[in-house]
Amino acid sequence: MTPAGGRRGPAPRGAGPPRRRPGPPSGAGRVQPVRRRPGGELGGDQVEGRRAVLELLAAGRRPVRRLLMADGQDPSVQLDDIEALAARCHVRVELVSRGRLDAEAATEAPQGVVAHAKPLEPVLLDELARPSDGRPPFLLVAAGVTDPRNLGALLRSAECAGVTGVVLPRHRAAHLTPTVAKVAAGAIEHLRFAVVGGIPAALEQLGQLGVWTVGLAGESGRSLYDLALADLPVALVVGGEERGMAPLVRRRCAEVVAIPQHGALPSLNVGVAGAVACFEVARQRSHR
Amino acid sequence: MTPAGGRRGPAPRGAGPPRRRPGPPSGAGRVQPVRRRPGGELGGDQVEGRRAVLELLAAGRRPVRRLLMADGQDPSVQLDDIEALAARCHVRVELVSRGRLDAEAATEAPQGVVAHAKPLEPVLLDELARPSDGRPPFLLVAAGVTDPRNLGALLRSAECAGVTGVVLPRHRAAHLTPTVAKVAAGAIEHLRFAVVGGIPAALEQLGQLGVWTVGLAGESGRSLYDLALADLPVALVVGGEERGMAPLVRRRCAEVVAIPQHGALPSLNVGVAGAVACFEVARQRSHR
Repeated sequence: MTPAGGRRGPAPRGAGPPRRRPGPPSGAGRVQPVRRRPGGELGGDQVEGRRAVLELLAAGRRPVRRLLMADGQDPSVQLDDIEALAARCHVRVELVSRGRLDAEAATEAPQGVVAHAKPLEPVLLDELARPSDGRPPFLLVAAGVTDPRNLGALLRSAECAGVTGVVLPRHRAAHLTPTVAKVAAGAIEHLRFAVVGGIPAALEQLGQLGVWTVGLAGESGRSLYDLALADLPVALVVGGEERGMAPLVRRRCAEVVAIPQHGALPSLNVGVAGAVACFEVARQRSHR
Repeated sequence: MTPAGGRRGPAPRGAGPPRRRPGPPSGAGRVQPVRRRPGGELGGDQVEGRRAVLELLAAGRRPVRRLLMADGQDPSVQLDDIEALAARCHVRVELVSRGRLDAEAATEAPQGVVAHAKPLEPVLLDELARPSDGRPPFLLVAAGVTDPRNLGALLRSAECAGVTGVVLPRHRAAHLTPTVAKVAAGAIEHLRFAVVGGIPAALEQLGQLGVWTVGLAGESGRSLYDLALADLPVALVVGGEERGMAPLVRRRCAEVVAIPQHGALPSLNVGVAGAVACFEVARQRSHR
């Protein structure tokens, strides 16, 4: 299933000179998440890291425009799998030097592989609110998560828990930058995203569409575990890293609950809190 | 409660010249976790980041030898709290330039504060296995987590879920480096740690001490949610990032369970899987 690794010897699919001159790195800064990306408002056009690129190719949801791989890497099953999937998708692997690859990369550790793909297209909120595969929708509203690592981790966990759609605000929040895509480990290829102008209005709209909006706030007196989350369409709402949910977002949630804490520390990381809540929904849905 | 910030103007506690010449950074490499630290086998002697330093001072479990703070930082409640706690603990704040602070720091973003403290002292395994505050012990065995960020995140989540003690292997695993301490956001100040020569033997010993050893492995056919975790002393065992639990570790667990997955991705991040499992124990314990 995996061809003999061609990254150390001659590689028929990738050894020739690049078909076109390398352009400048596609716009993703190392420091700040770029809000308006050339590739569209959602992003996702630059994908780095082995797992993320593997899922990009495996999901086959969008065309891959370029696939760069560093020459001289140690043999790896994941790299073999990437090459095999690329061949199946008719995507040419461009073997480049490690230095060139790292220069193209926007993340610190691209693991020897960078892909450029068609950006992800957002969908409308009411599309997210429809049942998917006969299951009631299970949404995540990331209301102001600004750290790309936190957003990426949250998306990965959410996908594993069965979340079907994600709502992101257009402004003051991380979008699908290369860091988000990498930390999400391919989750962005399997999730649908809506980008909204304002979270409060989106929560109101979700409520009208029959989705139960449940906000997480550490200071709430009500426990997540007291909610019956198995049968209703639900949207979990998590706030930003520093200040949690904005007051107006909080007021628009149908419920605001806490994950009971049992230690001395004041709070969980936002990505972990989201993950624990997503898996509580999943637990209830599979045990009903 | 918080004094007027003294980081921009004259600061009586910190403005003078350093009492002694700065030594070299205390041994923590930027790349590889150091196995045998000069400060002891467990580490924890260098703590960076505002939340981590705040908890170091607030917990008061070990002497703080030096506390460096960068001059010229924007006002911050956390920095004020650190200064107030330092004053209460009779720890002198050394105001240094941002460049000097960053040179002393082992992590990339020390947030303007670096502390040197007495290393954490490991305890014996049978001490961890005793009830703590009348509650049955709730332990976490990190059996080969090598990424300091993953270990730090896992410790933070575990502490929030009520874990009382952590078992770390002496070799081939991250110890309490500055990165672990920072990502753990102070959790290391509230947890007790045992360092063991071999995880399989430690699991056997825990079993003899009446602790139920429950391993997490994605490929297990048994669900975490089928276990009754409320009343027994329990130790959750999580494996390494790449290969999960070693076969011998797995064989020594009394149970091996999976967190049921509902998405397309093959697996959760190890820190998140540990967090979800810890909070399932917490949920059952508070709902019994």
